[in-house]
Amino acid sequence: MIGRDPLRWYTRNAWYVAGFSKDLPVGKAMGLTILGQPLAIWRGADGMVRAFDDRCAHRLAPLSKGRCEGNRLRCMYHGLLYEDDGSVSAVPGQTGIPPQARVRAYPACEHLDWIWVWMGEAADADHDLLPVPNGYNPKEFVFGYGQIDYAAEARLICDNLLDLSHVAFLHSASFQSEPEFADRLPLVSAVDRGVRVRRWIENTHGSSTRRSTAPVDAYQTYDFLVPGILLMWSANFPTGTAAKDSKEILPLDSIDGLSLTLQAVTPMTDQSARYFFYSGPHCRDGDEAKRDAMMEMAAQAFSEDREMIEAQQVLINIDPARRIVPSAHDRATTIYSGIVRKLNATRFAVAPCGSKEQNDVDE
Amino acid sequence: MIGRDPLRWYTRNAWYVAGFSKDLPVGKAMGLTILGQPLAIWRGADGMVRAFDDRCAHRLAPLSKGRCEGNRLRCMYHGLLYEDDGSVSAVPGQTGIPPQARVRAYPACEHLDWIWVWMGEAADADHDLLPVPNGYNPKEFVFGYGQIDYAAEARLICDNLLDLSHVAFLHSASFQSEPEFADRLPLVSAVDRGVRVRRWIENTHGSSTRRSTAPVDAYQTYDFLVPGILLMWSANFPTGTAAKDSKEILPLDSIDGLSLTLQAVTPMTDQSARYFFYSGPHCRDGDEAKRDAMMEMAAQAFSEDREMIEAQQVLINIDPARRIVPSAHDRATTIYSGIVRKLNATRFAVAPCGSKEQNDVDE
Amino acid sequence: MIGRDPLRWYTRNAWYVAGFSKDLPVGKAMGLTILGQPLAIWRGADGMVRAFDDRCAHRLAPLSKGRCEGNRLRCMYHGLLYEDDGSVSAVPGQTGIPPQARVRAYPACEHLDWIWVWMGEAADADHDLLPVPNGYNPKEFVFGYGQIDYAAEARLICDNLLDLSHVAFLHSASFQSEPEFADRLPLVSAVDRGVRVRRWIENTHGSSTRRSTAPVDAYQTYDFLVPGILLMWSANFPTGTAAKDSKEILPLDSIDGLSLTLQAVTPMTDQSARYFFYSGPHCRDGDEAKRDAMMEMAAQAFSEDREMIEAQQVLINIDPARRIVPSAHDRATTIYSGIVRKLNATRFAVAPCGSKEQNDVDE
Repeated sequence: MIGRDPLRWYTRNAWYVAGFSKDLPVGKAMGLTILGQPLAIWRGADGMVRAFDDRCAHRLAPLSKGRCEGNRLRCMYHGLLYEDDGSVSAVPGQTGIPPQARVRAYPACEHLDWIWVWMGEAADADHDLLPVPNGYNPKEFVFGYGQIDYAAEARLICDNLLDLSHVAFLHSASFQSEPEFADRLPLVSAVDRGVRVRRWIENTHGSSTRRSTAPVDAYQTYDFLVPGILLMWSANFPTGTAAKDSKEILPLDSIDGLSLTLQAVTPMTDQSARYFFYSGPHCRDGDEAKRDAMMEMAAQAFSEDREMIEAQQVLINIDPARRIVPSAHDRATTIYSGIVRKLNATRFAVAPCGSKEQNDVDE
Repeated sequence: MIGRDPLRWYTRNAWYVAGFSKDLPVGKAMGLTILGQPLAIWRGADGMVRAFDDRCAHRLAPLSKGRCEGNRLRCMYHGLLYEDDGSVSAVPGQTGIPPQARVRAYPACEHLDWIWVWMGEAADADHDLLPVPNGYNPKEFVFGYGQIDYAAEARLICDNLLDLSHVAFLHSASFQSEPEFADRLPLVSAVDRGVRVRRWIENTHGSSTRRSTAPVDAYQTYDFLVPGILLMWSANFPTGTAAKDSKEILPLDSIDGLSLTLQAVTPMTDQSARYFFYSGPHCRDGDEAKRDAMMEMAAQAFSEDREMIEAQQVLINIDPARRIVPSAHDRATTIYSGIVRKLNATRFAVAPCGSKEQNDVDE
Repeated sequence: MIGRDPLRWYTRNAWYVAGFSKDLPVGKAMGLTILGQPLAIWRGADGMVRAFDDRCAHRLAPLSKGRCEGNRLRCMYHGLLYEDDGSVSAVPGQTGIPPQARVRAYPACEHLDWIWVWMGEAADADHDLLPVPNGYNPKEFVFGYGQIDYAAEARLICDNLLDLSHVAFLHSASFQSEPEFADRLPLVSAVDRGVRVRRWIENTHGSSTRRSTAPVDAYQTYDFLVPGILLMWSANFPTGTAAKDSKEILPLDSIDGLSLTLQAVTPMTDQSARYFFYSGPHCRDGDEAKRDAMMEMAAQAFSEDREMIEAQQVLINIDPARRIVPSAHDRATTIYSGIVRKLNATRFAVAPCGSKEQNDVDE
């Protein structure tokens, strides 16, 4: 039913976003499949988030339909009671607990506005690998929140985010980008477990929600980090800033239009993914009305993305061996694929489409 | 499309419920797949029910879309006419009938309020294997009728019915059972081609539709018989009856709350089943209003069952080799599985999930 | 996902109908899968229709979501620009064009009211193989247009059209045919790349939309041509015409009731097909009101066909090896299958159901 091989492309030793903190109240459980593995994610009475394999040891019923009892989780089919380490402390109708009555517990935590689950071995869980926005404080932004399910594998969405030249075509209606946007290549560099992509548009009046009456140098920079996390900010700077481009340019040195978007692509199965995002202006440059305008525009654009990527997935499925022909804009994608490949213990993991050989060139 | 192996778990030499008699009028045909075999089930002008393989010999069109002509069935694609033994007596446009123009006819009959089809060899059809309620007359009850389709294999529904401890958790809202219900084990014994499960709740004021003002000993007993038939009655007895428990206890010796439910689980494919049920109070203890209240409660509970079992099926499909960890409440399930295994000519029939080895322990 | 073998039954060296000309305006692209191959079909500024493989060479995005720019097609994911021969003339962000950046272009044309695509090698495309109505001018008819998608393989729809005896049963409600219609065999003969089927009903008052007050000899004749094109006209002639049946009988020699229907069955995948049809009376014998009445009747009948054929497909899928038992009315089907088989380079192409051996008897 679910082919496992394409999922081997993804690094298990990483924190995957499982949802927004706000969406899991105290005493509730929810289900989400990550990397083909159904998980029960729940928040005990103490407010802590836990993640279990979502199948009761007894008869494989979903624990995500379970009931939180303090900091324990009760399977609501036949009533087995789980401690927060995945062990069973009660089986109705009997006193002894067989040793195999337990489920795997995954390290889980909260960071930024998200719940994260570590999909590798618990002993390897490393909180230093949670992505940290560099040079700005997310709490100063006015955010809107959303998520979209894709009938497509996560890698195609990552590819989409690693090459934003597509906004010139796919989003010409929603973001009103000019075709010229795609004529210039962005500045691409490797960072720790990811890629940094930076773009200057000089002497412009801006575009979409970031219009300016006086000419400015518009700047956009994002890090795209394993296993599929995008941290991007945009802002306008005085004309001339681009010419003396500094890698240490700071968001609050901008003159206006500062906004932030945080996005995460979580592989559910080899043919489905959940895309989480939140976005908004800095409180200096916008309010809830501006945030709502940005979210409305994003909703249209993300719908354009999904329609294209799901159609692309259908075509890939019909002829999975078909090779891609990379373009100059694929540079960030190529670097990122190389990083993922190196992180994988299994060096020759099966790639999801014929793109592997051409994408995975070292730079 | 339809894997056959899991269906080998089910005994072919058995009567399977194909529907309610009331739902198949004279002169009508209907389709139902049993054990992966599409059947056309029809009632001729003489009122007798017949069952054919649901594919015309000519071009494999469904005979369940056919037209009854007296005691014959006409294929409504190109008009072949079938006698009630499955032979063809007319082919439009020609006079001769080729000998291979015939379909398999299955023994069919009516019993209780159901239509039954024998899925084994016709020569082996044995009317003595139709289940007979013991010690009560179904005609004295005021019944409501229903059926539910499951996207799950029948065996999981049988497991559900063989261990009613789940009502304490899964049906805590609908049946308002107490968790304590699951703390006590029922009395389980083997009967001919099935299992008998009996439960006393002593000195109780009852639960759900069977509440009592004075304390009573509440009794519930059911036989679960091959290939998936449940015959259950419940009633209240004077306190003290449980203490001197007699296996020959009779329904009409009860003081009130006597009700009956007859249920049948029919495997359609290896991933789908139809669940037929009818239930109601004895006319001594209830009327149509009480029957309606019972059916409403059952509708909610059966919906809880279906949601859980379909989710369980999804999880089993993701990891079909995963073993279960049986509990003390699985005793009836284990005995029943042993009976099924012995009935099967193919001793090592493939089990639908990893539960085989652990379930099929002889007792 | 898409099994290829059953599609090998269909001749690639043929023109397949891809849609109605009226449905593809200048400057628009549309997608259609033919023989398992997704195609982007588009009409440039010059009004000419082109057909490409529907996957951009870059990252396999659908070109059917592309934008026509003059007589070029732009991929709207990352902006590659295609010439009408399938070569790429621009890749945003770079100057060089890699040689493998191209897609296959298929010969396409317009004929009758349809768009046609040649699915074989382009060098073999032969416009003489476009079907030409013989003895009548389609422009003199008042047409209605329609199309239906089937969840069934095209061959089953071809079988349906090659044996119209089914109207006596399947369409007894919609076309109000008598069962006697199926008692008589039509006159069947081979024509170039197809079969001709002719039927006289002598001394009749007609049926369905072709009723007559005085008795007439009703005539119906159609050619069914590779790869699934039906050209049929019907009309009433003076009584006695049937007795002196002439193969050169002309439509306009009829006294009334002259109507025409053109139909095409296009295999999309091995389990899906699109059925295109247009029909109407000759302007001598009917107007738009009569055309609308014919179309309404056809809509009901085609819905009966689809329901039966999709059910037939389900049954075939459950037991693909099951053989059919041909009847006398299968003669046209048998001849047509022989023609298809001879056209196929691969003589022993896999047939879609067990019918091959019995159908493919030479006559």
